[in-house]
Formats: sequence, structure tokens, C-alpha cells
Amino acid sequence: MNQSEEKSKILDGRLFAQEYLEKILKPRCDIFREHYKKLPKLSTILVGSNPASESYIKLKERFFEKLCVESEVFRLPENIKEKEFLNFIEKQNKDDSIDGILVQMPLPDHIDEDIIIESINPSKDVEGLSPGNVYAWAKALPNLVPATALGVLALLKFYKIPIEGKHVVVVGRSMIVGKPVAHLFLKENATVTICHSRTKSLEKHTSDADILIVAVGKPHFIKKRMIKEGAVVVDVGINFEDGKLIGDVDYDDLKLDASYISPVPGGSGPATVCILASNLLLAFELKKAKDDEEKRNCLKTYYENYNTIGETGFCV
Amino acid sequence: MNQSEEKSKILDGRLFAQEYLEKILKPRCDIFREHYKKLPKLSTILVGSNPASESYIKLKERFFEKLCVESEVFRLPENIKEKEFLNFIEKQNKDDSIDGILVQMPLPDHIDEDIIIESINPSKDVEGLSPGNVYAWAKALPNLVPATALGVLALLKFYKIPIEGKHVVVVGRSMIVGKPVAHLFLKENATVTICHSRTKSLEKHTSDADILIVAVGKPHFIKKRMIKEGAVVVDVGINFEDGKLIGDVDYDDLKLDASYISPVPGGSGPATVCILASNLLLAFELKKAKDDEEKRNCLKTYYENYNTIGETGFCV
Repeated sequence: MNQSEEKSKILDGRLFAQEYLEKILKPRCDIFREHYKKLPKLSTILVGSNPASESYIKLKERFFEKLCVESEVFRLPENIKEKEFLNFIEKQNKDDSIDGILVQMPLPDHIDEDIIIESINPSKDVEGLSPGNVYAWAKALPNLVPATALGVLALLKFYKIPIEGKHVVVVGRSMIVGKPVAHLFLKENATVTICHSRTKSLEKHTSDADILIVAVGKPHFIKKRMIKEGAVVVDVGINFEDGKLIGDVDYDDLKLDASYISPVPGGSGPATVCILASNLLLAFELKKAKDDEEKRNCLKTYYENYNTIGETGFCV
Repeated sequence: MNQSEEKSKILDGRLFAQEYLEKILKPRCDIFREHYKKLPKLSTILVGSNPASESYIKLKERFFEKLCVESEVFRLPENIKEKEFLNFIEKQNKDDSIDGILVQMPLPDHIDEDIIIESINPSKDVEGLSPGNVYAWAKALPNLVPATALGVLALLKFYKIPIEGKHVVVVGRSMIVGKPVAHLFLKENATVTICHSRTKSLEKHTSDADILIVAVGKPHFIKKRMIKEGAVVVDVGINFEDGKLIGDVDYDDLKLDASYISPVPGGSGPATVCILASNLLLAFELKKAKDDEEKRNCLKTYYENYNTIGETGFCV
């Protein structure tokens, strides 16, 4: 047998992002330019510094340059007081020129992340982490959903990987990946298992997965022996070793056994950025339609559909 | 071997309720009587009629009579308009004499359940289904949690069944059982699998469970061949056949194979009622402490602790 035929197919996040940009986001931008004078604006807030955040911001900025969106990064000092931080966010909540607010996590220890997240105006919460948005995704209602989680689903849909009835195992139980991933894949009628740092016999669970989604934050943690042959593996890990970005999955070890595998970098990252952009456009459009409940529902469904079944509509 | 030694132990919800009443709820009532003139009041709203709802209301009313709470059942006509229903709830939201509002589901088809749930004042939402409360349980923050889900956990804790590291499989993905069960058991460091009507090879998943929690609404659906020997089985099913209440689990078929099993009636039902009472007391106390964030946090932790680790504190 030809060795190359045995290889896993790559879940290419860059290819996905290119298509998503051309077929989904840019046409929407064209509509915006026609209808609105002011275009969407994202505020990214970074407190202190952190290599994963810097890498994500770079990726994001490069992508957003190709779009009809304005993007500004606000850098706050590591030692900022929580109260000052809250005032800063409150100003941006009130600033009508800003449509989306993204606070880069993690925050320094002296700041309560929950308090910060809850302080963001829900209609500007492009990360889908504020109470009303969590309620929506937990209930499977369309709305702003955490970008990384929806990015994984959209990437799999792009590669036409069947999800209904599959056993999806997610390793990690965070609010930005594990939990929203579980809810999104439940909505797609997958059977979902959530594993985490306290799971016993992790290997038993991971090797039962038809689709394995990994967000544990441990470099090359998932090895070949931990997966079933033919599994689909999505690596959401972002780890830095010697300044090099590496994932949670040992790609070289697995690449002959998985049917599909996402690389790091170039897999889940670009898909995340696409959904972040989509969330920003949705937040912008919802604001424009703020007194029109019917249009708001149409918009939520439109954005959900193109992210989950690849279909687009109009709602203009 | 003696046949009786082989039998499953029963997760006796009535015994649990008796102890919970004497050790947890009544002492709290004593404190209330000492401190407050007015005692907690629950409003139960039933639209039309339905045997499961009637049975639950009867159980609940009988239990609440033993407590320091007032409980009133409001029966609305089957054909009530959504708008009238919303007005009715709005009145109860504003009525300071009412501390908790429970709307019996299911509602008639012409009424949107989500709109009704979202209309309930979150601080009176003793079912833990409004946006802020869903956010809390999805994030593992203490607050008002769906009574059936927390009842299952409390019942297992009462029988000192280890949960950390166990594989918990829940069959059902509703907002009142499947989803909150998943989050509550994740918080307890279990590995959690969520199955549902579209799960393929359900038997494979259920028979992998250390703890199986069933809420599918199909009489005697779970058979012996679907569980692992020694599994703990909790039946949350409420089905009526010929006027008789029966669960989702075929109790007689399983009773020699499970290590613990909850009967229907007399298992999960009484535990649900206990947590509903606990939620009402918590809602009442949170209202009394409405401007004291520190006390509110203390109270949430107090109620969570006695429901999840059996410990009580004071926060008076």
C-alpha cells in the first residue's frame, strides 16, 4: 500500500479561513458598505503580556485587515487595579463606535475573570461568555457562541465530516472550549463525553472517540495509543516551547492513525479567528436591528446556519 | 450465596427526604421563625392539567405542609393566551409576598416555554432555569440549580456513593435534567457522557457507566443488559400507564445487577421536592440579604455545601 494513502487528511484551518473570508465574510462586508456608513469595530483588551495572547492577536489582526472591520488593541498594564479595569470596560460599553469587546484571557491573578466577563455589555460580548450568551448556547439557541468552540464545529463541517450520532469526546471543561463544544455537538445530535484533568483512565475514553477534541494545555499530550484508528482529531492546544507554538496532540505520532487531524499552528486557530469575525459582524447587525425582534431572530439564525450547515441567507 | 445479599441497595428517596427535612430544612425554619415575621412563600402555576404535574404537585404540597413555607397553587385555563400568562407572572414577580415561582412544565403548545421561563424574576426562579441561573450552574458557581438534577446528586451523596473520577452517563439532554446533571457531576470531577434520543449504540454507552442517570420518558426502557454489573442507577423517569406511576428503568429486571438503584416512585421524586424547598429557602434568604454581597455569597455556598457535601454552616 502506498504510504501516502495511509496518511491522515489535514483539517487545514488556513484553507478554511480563506474560503470563509471569500465566500462568507467579504460578501457580508459588501452589503455593509452599501447600507451603513460606519463599519464594525472590535476592541481587544490585553492586560500585561503572554505569548499565547500575542500570537492570537497577531493572527487576528492580520485576518481582520482583509475585512471591513476596524480593530484596535488596547494594552493595559499588568498591575492595573480591578476597579480601573472595570471603568475602562464601562467606557467601551458606552462607546457607540465599538461593536465588540474581547478581553484576552488569562488575566493577572489579582483580577477576578468572572467579574470582568460579567461587566461586558452582553450585546458586545463577541466571545459568548456573558450570562445571557451562555444561557443561549446551553439551550441550543442561536446567538454569540465562544469562537474556538464554534470554530471547531465549522472546520469539521467544512470538511463534511459527519457528526450526528458520532461519539464526540472533548478533553477539557473550560467555558471557552470544553463546555461550549459539548453543547454545540449535542445540538448536532452527537453523543458527547467530557473528560478533564481528574478523569481516570483517560486513554479508555479518548480511544472510544469517533471525534476527539483536545484542549488541555499540555504539549504533545495525546499520543497514538490514545486514539482509535480512523478517529477525527482536533487539536485546540496552544503551548509554547522555546518560543515555538505546539499543540496538545503529538501530530507526528498520530498522523498515520487518525482519518483527519488538525495541525497546530494552522488548524483550530484560523477557524477561531473566522468565528470571532463572524460574531463581530453579528453583534454589529443585531445592534442595527435592535428594535426589530423578527430581524434579530432572522440574523441569529442566518449566522448560525452559515457556521453550522454552510448555508447562507440574507436578512438584509 | 444468600439471594438477599445479591440484591441492589435501594436509593430510598423517602428516607432521604425525611432526614433532609429533620436535619436541614426544619432547623433552618427555626432560624427563620426567630428572625423574620413573614415566612417563605412558593407560587406554583399549573396551566391546564397533566397527570405527571398533578402527581408532583401532590407530593410537593404534602412535603411543604411540614415546613415553614406557604405554598399556593394557581390553576390557569388550558387555553390561556400567552400575553395573559405573562401578565399573571409579572404580577407575581412584583408581589413581595411571593419568594419563589414554579411554572409546571410542559405548557400547552401555543405557549412558548422559553418566553415564560425568561419572564420569571431570576431571584424567584426556584427552578434554576432563567438566564442568570443557567449561567451560574454552567460555570459551576453556587446558586439556584434545577431541583431534579441537584436532587440526584444529593441523593447519591446521602448514600455516600463516590463520584469523583467515576464515569457518569446521563440519558436525556433536557434543561431540567440532562444538562444540569452533566454540569453538576463535572463539578464533582466525574467524567460525564450525555446520551439522548439520537445516540447510536445507546447500550454501549449505558453499559460503560459507573453511575447511570436516566431521564428519557419511556416506561421501563432501561433493561439489565444495558448496564454494567455493579453500576449505580438513578431513575428520573415519570411515566403513567393505566394511572400507575412508573419509571424509565425496568427495576425488577435490574435489581440483582445494580449496586444501587432508585425506585419510582420513592426515589428521585422526593429528592427533587427537597431541593425545591431548599431553593425556596435560599431565594428567601437572598432577598433578605439583597444589599449584602458578602452574605449572599455565604448563603449560596452554605446551601450548596449542604446539598453537595452534607455540611451545614450558618450565615445567619
